[in-house]
Amino acid sequence: MATRERSRSKFGSGLGGELSAEFLGTFVLILLGCGSVAVALAGLPGSGRQEDAFGPANWLIIAFGWGFAVVFGVYIAGGVSGAHINPAVTLAFAVRRSFPWRKVVPYIVAQVVGAFLAAGVVFSCYRWAIDAFNAKAGVGRAESLDTFSIFATFPAKYFGSSWLGPLLDQVVGTAILVALICALIDVRNSAPASNLGPFLIGMVVTAIGLSFGVSAGYAINPARDFGPRLWAYLTGWGEIALPGTYQWFSAYFWIPIVGPFIGGVLGALIYDAFIGKVLAARDTAPEPGRVPGTEADGS
Amino acid sequence: MATRERSRSKFGSGLGGELSAEFLGTFVLILLGCGSVAVALAGLPGSGRQEDAFGPANWLIIAFGWGFAVVFGVYIAGGVSGAHINPAVTLAFAVRRSFPWRKVVPYIVAQVVGAFLAAGVVFSCYRWAIDAFNAKAGVGRAESLDTFSIFATFPAKYFGSSWLGPLLDQVVGTAILVALICALIDVRNSAPASNLGPFLIGMVVTAIGLSFGVSAGYAINPARDFGPRLWAYLTGWGEIALPGTYQWFSAYFWIPIVGPFIGGVLGALIYDAFIGKVLAARDTAPEPGRVPGTEADGS
Amino acid sequence: MATRERSRSKFGSGLGGELSAEFLGTFVLILLGCGSVAVALAGLPGSGRQEDAFGPANWLIIAFGWGFAVVFGVYIAGGVSGAHINPAVTLAFAVRRSFPWRKVVPYIVAQVVGAFLAAGVVFSCYRWAIDAFNAKAGVGRAESLDTFSIFATFPAKYFGSSWLGPLLDQVVGTAILVALICALIDVRNSAPASNLGPFLIGMVVTAIGLSFGVSAGYAINPARDFGPRLWAYLTGWGEIALPGTYQWFSAYFWIPIVGPFIGGVLGALIYDAFIGKVLAARDTAPEPGRVPGTEADGS
Amino acid sequence: MATRERSRSKFGSGLGGELSAEFLGTFVLILLGCGSVAVALAGLPGSGRQEDAFGPANWLIIAFGWGFAVVFGVYIAGGVSGAHINPAVTLAFAVRRSFPWRKVVPYIVAQVVGAFLAAGVVFSCYRWAIDAFNAKAGVGRAESLDTFSIFATFPAKYFGSSWLGPLLDQVVGTAILVALICALIDVRNSAPASNLGPFLIGMVVTAIGLSFGVSAGYAINPARDFGPRLWAYLTGWGEIALPGTYQWFSAYFWIPIVGPFIGGVLGALIYDAFIGKVLAARDTAPEPGRVPGTEADGS
Repeated sequence: MATRERSRSKFGSGLGGELSAEFLGTFVLILLGCGSVAVALAGLPGSGRQEDAFGPANWLIIAFGWGFAVVFGVYIAGGVSGAHINPAVTLAFAVRRSFPWRKVVPYIVAQVVGAFLAAGVVFSCYRWAIDAFNAKAGVGRAESLDTFSIFATFPAKYFGSSWLGPLLDQVVGTAILVALICALIDVRNSAPASNLGPFLIGMVVTAIGLSFGVSAGYAINPARDFGPRLWAYLTGWGEIALPGTYQWFSAYFWIPIVGPFIGGVLGALIYDAFIGKVLAARDTAPEPGRVPGTEADGS
Repeated sequence: MATRERSRSKFGSGLGGELSAEFLGTFVLILLGCGSVAVALAGLPGSGRQEDAFGPANWLIIAFGWGFAVVFGVYIAGGVSGAHINPAVTLAFAVRRSFPWRKVVPYIVAQVVGAFLAAGVVFSCYRWAIDAFNAKAGVGRAESLDTFSIFATFPAKYFGSSWLGPLLDQVVGTAILVALICALIDVRNSAPASNLGPFLIGMVVTAIGLSFGVSAGYAINPARDFGPRLWAYLTGWGEIALPGTYQWFSAYFWIPIVGPFIGGVLGALIYDAFIGKVLAARDTAPEPGRVPGTEADGS
Repeated sequence: MATRERSRSKFGSGLGGELSAEFLGTFVLILLGCGSVAVALAGLPGSGRQEDAFGPANWLIIAFGWGFAVVFGVYIAGGVSGAHINPAVTLAFAVRRSFPWRKVVPYIVAQVVGAFLAAGVVFSCYRWAIDAFNAKAGVGRAESLDTFSIFATFPAKYFGSSWLGPLLDQVVGTAILVALICALIDVRNSAPASNLGPFLIGMVVTAIGLSFGVSAGYAINPARDFGPRLWAYLTGWGEIALPGTYQWFSAYFWIPIVGPFIGGVLGALIYDAFIGKVLAARDTAPEPGRVPGTEADGS
Repeated sequence: MATRERSRSKFGSGLGGELSAEFLGTFVLILLGCGSVAVALAGLPGSGRQEDAFGPANWLIIAFGWGFAVVFGVYIAGGVSGAHINPAVTLAFAVRRSFPWRKVVPYIVAQVVGAFLAAGVVFSCYRWAIDAFNAKAGVGRAESLDTFSIFATFPAKYFGSSWLGPLLDQVVGTAILVALICALIDVRNSAPASNLGPFLIGMVVTAIGLSFGVSAGYAINPARDFGPRLWAYLTGWGEIALPGTYQWFSAYFWIPIVGPFIGGVLGALIYDAFIGKVLAARDTAPEPGRVPGTEADGS
């Protein structure tokens, strides 16, 4: 398809192409991710049973749903833009991986726009299910935290009105995400080859969903949360969406933005302090046949 | 086994061999896929409890069941025919991937025949379970939408009699499928190597099952739906199967045919517009060591 | 560890080493596989609730449990013996893959002995759980089909006294297994590289568990069924184990032996008829850059 | 980042760097692993329902949670220290894989410290959830075996006061773990390439969780158990944590230390006796094209 003789177009070789890929990658992320919450919450028969809405089997749907959403968001954009599909990754890579600062804001805009429009597609596909769910519960969209949860996140009730808990959760979750991404793309370390990095990066998100997903909905990505939140705000969820006000909490929306930005940078710093520094200090690659830690260890 | 001196036979090198592979690949797809619905619906003890028939844990069985069905359908046929095992993929590849138009109809016929006969094997293995399920519910096959769902798809009740909802769902689901297949086989992008593409293509279907599977049963494949539907029609499910008439809907059968054909082409167009065009515009492969988006990013 | 100068020992290079590997591979298979049934049935709190013993979430434990059991049984033995760990595979490979006939009986003996002794380890680890389960149900081992199911298989009640149903199920299940193994190890086809074949072969068993696992317990392996069955016979399950007599059926034990042998050969024949023959007829490998079915298809 | 001219620093090339990696690897292991128990037990809505706390769907969360915890603990540390992240692995590798004895104690200390501090982070993130769970149950931390289970392990009730059962369980579980690690890193066998060993090593832990996880909580790692146990002791769980005293058992803490050490060495010995010895006895690698067991078998 590509002709090697073709002159470089501005679009393809420059920032435009990368933004196109970030847009589509984040679009796929939200389609598959928010879609999986819609399935668990409003799609499956019997899902109206309140106590089961986020029961353990539904949680597996959501955790693998978001994990695969990342897998395929990264595969579709990876060869073009590096597939950040997450402003927290973009910022962390600017701080610690020489990602050009001038691209940071454009990347983030592309990610948020992609997330916003994909939320629109999810809404379009599931509005029948959403309205049926709310009709059964006898509430309108503006009163339905349940159906809002298809789009964006909110803190667990056990935090009460504390913002420290969910903020800490978002910092820790995103730090794990970015530290592990740093490991999985570091060829000096044991990065997966054969282009299987995207699969494992997605499984990081499944792992975080299984271990740090329930306290604040594991946004761990400002675009993933804010884009769909904005869509929900515009289509009837009102203050539940923006500024994010519930019975036990008000103005939540900034936490899944600020927390991931802090956590992402922190994760990269931790990786570099504990691992990157060591790998950099080794002046050469390990001699052939020499595997660290144990001679027979090839992992 | 192969002797290099052997002259090319018509069968092996020509269309006949490819149709043989498409037949067997789709056969495996339906065996494992429809089989997993049979397990969830009628096979497991306690599965007669109506409310649980498509509960979240059963949904995981079905989503991973169909995902692995695709994985192994693609592995068994991949080296011979490219393993479309889906008329929507075949059409999309004809439109956007130079797949020869003269092969389109034969491929589709092979896929539908494979799906039809595999549905027969599933029926043969599960007819005891099906009849026991229906006996317990006190209905015959012709009244049992539940047992029909082993074979083919129907729209969620929340759509009411709207055909727009399920059609949109099929278009979106198949667009995601084909756009991601385009990504996963595009070596200019970050396509998985080591022949692991089939594994990830199957996991796309798991991901779609987890995120867009419940509204209309994620046929996303005209052969997967029509072949077993025809079998069910001929073995007692009557109008529920063809033309697909339920209490709240009539003549459904065309939606999982038309929707996937539209969605498949749309998915390929979207991939090419947002990603393919960019990759084509880069006149050369990225220089060695240069990874897009960030210097350390190897994903 | 190996010194290249060392003379070939009888043990290492001959049949003895291969039998050692088949023994340990099948041992691992049964440890992890039967162990997962023990967890689902008698290990988890609340697992005594009869209706949930094989509920859908437990079925996922069992399907992934047996799948990973095969993954790791094959990894541990693969480099030495080819890791059949299944007499049906051994027989099919003798019939269609030039596996030496003189090794068939020794391989099968090693597999059955490995399965028998591993069942002993599972019994030793879970006898407290088993006895507590039976005490709660108020039955002895000889009356407990539930706890017997940790070790070996029995047909679903919906078959009644028909032996045709479970036999067909075993033939079909094993045919799928062996046909897919043939695909996954056929380098002329799209066999996974990077030594990931064992992972995917194990996932075949997960897929069969999800789609053909409930009708007759998916033995699909005479050693997997008979070895633990014999152990159960000797440690108190009596006629339930051998000859396999239940209220609705008598002398079941031969079905998960005969069915898999027939199915395994059938699977290899089907693979060769539909795929192997085509690949053999192609006198050369596809030209570089030429991918069958579609030009951009790299799966 | 690394400059080849840079002189080797003590930190990077020596033991210090390896301990840094063992610390961070075990830290990640505990974050993701203990976090997944926190999700299943106290995080999910409805998780207060006692009977469901370790129901089968929750068990899948825990089994995949700990599996992925190992996957990513190994990926983050693998290239630096070999990623033992488990004293039982370290000891077994010293006994059978030439791992230097002088590094054994430092490795173990780094692992335990990493596990201890990560338990602190899990505690910090989940203390709201834990206190809410205990408040609902009307107990304090010192009476709550349920919330203690987030941090460390205890034996199933069916063992009564027997220490033989849980000790045997820990020996068997760890033997399986280490024998399979030996297989997965042995390039003479069928070790996965493309740096996918860590993925499969983690899935070993998922497999053990599914098959030997419920009897004694599958510590199979002295650091994983003792580090968080110590944290729990210091933050309110008292004798439940140390020495590990419950209604039906007293002073449990030593079993998940001693059992894994014995089992780990045993696993390595078994691997070497049944497989390693055979591979060593083969004086050369199999000739090209010659695959053991069957000619077409490439697994």
